[in-house]
Amino acid sequence: MKVEIWSDVVCPWCFVGKRQFERALERFDHADELEITWRAYELDPRAPEVREGTYAERIARKYGMEVGAARAAMSRIISVGAEAGIEFKFDSMQPGNTFNAHRLLHYAKTQGRQDAFKERLLHATFFEGQATGTHEVLAQLAVEVGLDVAGVAEVLDSELFGDDVRSDERVAQALGVTGVPFFLIDETYGIPGAQAPDVFLSILERAWGETHRTVQIVGADGQVCDDEACEI
Amino acid sequence: MKVEIWSDVVCPWCFVGKRQFERALERFDHADELEITWRAYELDPRAPEVREGTYAERIARKYGMEVGAARAAMSRIISVGAEAGIEFKFDSMQPGNTFNAHRLLHYAKTQGRQDAFKERLLHATFFEGQATGTHEVLAQLAVEVGLDVAGVAEVLDSELFGDDVRSDERVAQALGVTGVPFFLIDETYGIPGAQAPDVFLSILERAWGETHRTVQIVGADGQVCDDEACEI
Repeated sequence: MKVEIWSDVVCPWCFVGKRQFERALERFDHADELEITWRAYELDPRAPEVREGTYAERIARKYGMEVGAARAAMSRIISVGAEAGIEFKFDSMQPGNTFNAHRLLHYAKTQGRQDAFKERLLHATFFEGQATGTHEVLAQLAVEVGLDVAGVAEVLDSELFGDDVRSDERVAQALGVTGVPFFLIDETYGIPGAQAPDVFLSILERAWGETHRTVQIVGADGQVCDDEACEI
Repeated sequence: MKVEIWSDVVCPWCFVGKRQFERALERFDHADELEITWRAYELDPRAPEVREGTYAERIARKYGMEVGAARAAMSRIISVGAEAGIEFKFDSMQPGNTFNAHRLLHYAKTQGRQDAFKERLLHATFFEGQATGTHEVLAQLAVEVGLDVAGVAEVLDSELFGDDVRSDERVAQALGVTGVPFFLIDETYGIPGAQAPDVFLSILERAWGETHRTVQIVGADGQVCDDEACEI
């Protein structure tokens, strides 16, 4: 069964959603039979390689509040993150443009290392303050998760997988996705945002049940012939 | 979507069920997109080519009643048949072994003429008093619906498609089928016996809806990031 997750690298709720989804998978009997694909979504396609200013400053700007108030308002995301086992280090973040990260995530998919690379990118962004919009950092992180040095360089030095990133984003638009994370289960159930593990689990089970149906007898007994004569 | 119908040639309820199913199809929007297969079920594999005695006599024997009482008891099948547009001529019937008819039905499937041949066999059996267990009658009827003379002769003079007939019957057994007709919709919904058109229709629509799902958004809105900053 297919699971597609639209997500960005510099997206705290995407990180939280990933953990909550993983917690659901721990309790889902068919987790090994899922094909999970990370799909691209750029929160800010016009972002520079490294963005100036802190996360609190961006929140303050977005919601028209003082930076101190923004910091206080971020307590929810921080506490939900902590519950999910994620200790966000917002002040040291150096987020930036994620187009190249998404292209490399597509390359990593072809190498069977997509989830590992996604995880590495999130760690680097939210725990290590690495500038995951830069070629240097991306190349280093990609190799750390086992991707081929030459293969990574070829992607970064070209436009490879750019069409795949755009395609992911067009599909998201067609689905009406305006924020991430967005989970699509079996091309049928769209789940917007980071949800409690129980929510993910129940939808996984519903979708699985519908696509792995066994024969059930429906309708009251109709008339049959059951040997050389028939019901009368 | 697949529809498989286990049925025998000498089975009045199968004929009634066929008509009732056809009436459901008239009101089903996706009737053209169904792949309908007639599957073999022999009510009496040990039957001779042509069986002695009338249908009323067999009913009488089966239910331990006088032939006159059996005739009266058959009024239900006769009246339900009439409602479905089928005027059974039970007294002139010459039913017999149906193994060869089922082999030819499999051949007809390969030629795209299975439903036409099934219909022709039912007419011959129940309206025309033809001995549909004999090679001569089978060959004649098969050619009437456009099957190739040489192809039909090759089937009748060999054991071709015998394994397919046995396979159909093994599947029926595995499904717990003990009488026919038995309808299997999309390998999921088993419908025993001749049912009202409304019953067939509602199950067709349910199955279709489940296998032609469109994306639906489930779960309350979770937290998302929707531009360079995030919900707080």
